[in-house]
Amino acid sequence: MNIIIFGAGAIGSLFGALLSKGNNAILIGRKPHITAIKKNGLKIEGKTNLNAKIKAESSVDNVTFKPDLLILTVKSYDTETAIIQAKKIITNDTIVLSLQNGLDNIEKISKHISSEKVIAGITTHGAFFSKPGGIKHTGKGTTVLGELNRKKTKHVDNIVKLFNEAGIKTAESKNVIKDVWGKAIINSSINPLTAIFKCRNGCLSENPILEKFLEIICEESVKIANADGIDLSYSDMLAKTKEVVKNTSDNYSSMLQSVINRKKTEIDSINGKLIEIGRKYNVSTLINEILVNSIKSL
Amino acid sequence: MNIIIFGAGAIGSLFGALLSKGNNAILIGRKPHITAIKKNGLKIEGKTNLNAKIKAESSVDNVTFKPDLLILTVKSYDTETAIIQAKKIITNDTIVLSLQNGLDNIEKISKHISSEKVIAGITTHGAFFSKPGGIKHTGKGTTVLGELNRKKTKHVDNIVKLFNEAGIKTAESKNVIKDVWGKAIINSSINPLTAIFKCRNGCLSENPILEKFLEIICEESVKIANADGIDLSYSDMLAKTKEVVKNTSDNYSSMLQSVINRKKTEIDSINGKLIEIGRKYNVSTLINEILVNSIKSL
Repeated sequence: MNIIIFGAGAIGSLFGALLSKGNNAILIGRKPHITAIKKNGLKIEGKTNLNAKIKAESSVDNVTFKPDLLILTVKSYDTETAIIQAKKIITNDTIVLSLQNGLDNIEKISKHISSEKVIAGITTHGAFFSKPGGIKHTGKGTTVLGELNRKKTKHVDNIVKLFNEAGIKTAESKNVIKDVWGKAIINSSINPLTAIFKCRNGCLSENPILEKFLEIICEESVKIANADGIDLSYSDMLAKTKEVVKNTSDNYSSMLQSVINRKKTEIDSINGKLIEIGRKYNVSTLINEILVNSIKSL
Repeated sequence: MNIIIFGAGAIGSLFGALLSKGNNAILIGRKPHITAIKKNGLKIEGKTNLNAKIKAESSVDNVTFKPDLLILTVKSYDTETAIIQAKKIITNDTIVLSLQNGLDNIEKISKHISSEKVIAGITTHGAFFSKPGGIKHTGKGTTVLGELNRKKTKHVDNIVKLFNEAGIKTAESKNVIKDVWGKAIINSSINPLTAIFKCRNGCLSENPILEKFLEIICEESVKIANADGIDLSYSDMLAKTKEVVKNTSDNYSSMLQSVINRKKTEIDSINGKLIEIGRKYNVSTLINEILVNSIKSL
């Protein structure tokens, strides 16, 4: 299959490396990483160990084939820029898979691409960017994906099969929008708190004040989801959030990594979007506002 | 006047030093501090600068006079031990003034002394124990005191006059039990949080998550006070708490000092007592429980 992976961060690079075996895959990302990959290949260490000879470019302008699949793995604040660039190369038959965090990606993509061509997915793999050309795979996770309208389609079947054949454990989601919300709620609770207190994810279960605050955030975020018609329960989401905290105890959240590296965070697409949605339905967004303001002041 | 100051911590030592001029005052405290005072006097530095030649003993057994006034400045967990010892030396005419933090001192004292002889007071002075024989006076505050039954009496008049003459700015309180509650609520919000996060008081206004948690604690504590018939408002108490945070921004709370020095904290007499009272009235005590459990686990 002809695949463009747009976004060569940790997850994009990991998926790209795995998909490059047996497919015509190309990774689009920033120059230092791409240059290193072109020179020495893409080295994945940790839970996966391989040195992938994947094509890599810093712009879609250098892509010489028409993709069957475009996987978007850019940060949510880059989604619209990426899709506008990708439009130059994709065809009417290209399927766009958003494998991103945040609540605003589908909306941003759908401004430019017919939503029939868009599939959403989430993954629970843990990985971080260790150096240009190198990714550390810290936690094996699972991936789910599905049509936005929840219909079973050949497209989804094909991508699920493609991913599993590449060694990426993947299933079809019965309700991928709900899954995207679920992951956003978990991220809304864990990421800003660890970024503000500059601590490992595990501190959110070790410090009872932070654990209580985690609960308060999760509760508010679930109420906002419910107001938007997303059928998620607080007790369930809190249990899942605490499970992620436990399983990623030694990890530094992506938001903390962004703060440390003085890079833009995804706060606007997660907690910021929750505030926007909450306000629409007159649901309290106070806690998410505190988080957004705190992150912005860092 | 013959005065025993029982409790030679920072506040007891400061008040003892000031009262020793013009009165027959003796300070009761722990050996290293008392030995240093006997040898070199009691040195107060900071907002007050003096080297007081105050009598000092490590036990009331060595007091050779009958006190007109017993000022209790021990930590609340030592109140009962102190009053039992003091009973050996005080007379029916001795007035007992509790100048302590916590919500259980009056109850403990009243088990052993007729409440007609007990006066309560609170002070907003800031001070810390710098070394044996030395106290740092970090913030000039005010002191209020009054009868438990809110009546105006000669006793209160006399002590207010005594304190003011010694340079301790003091006024009669119209409702000292309410004042004791007010200070306990402020302490319930600031002290455990700074001890858990090991930060200056100022961090509670600088970190928006901690500021929000400060509000949550204050709200719960005020509800408990209200259930117990204490007429305090949340908005008023929150404003006062934030004012204290601002004015003591660079200070380390007494509870944090205790935690750092691996000494017992006053958590049981502040948040612990709030939980006990809250449960009596079926008011939620969840946040105070988190604080007590956190402090106990340190």
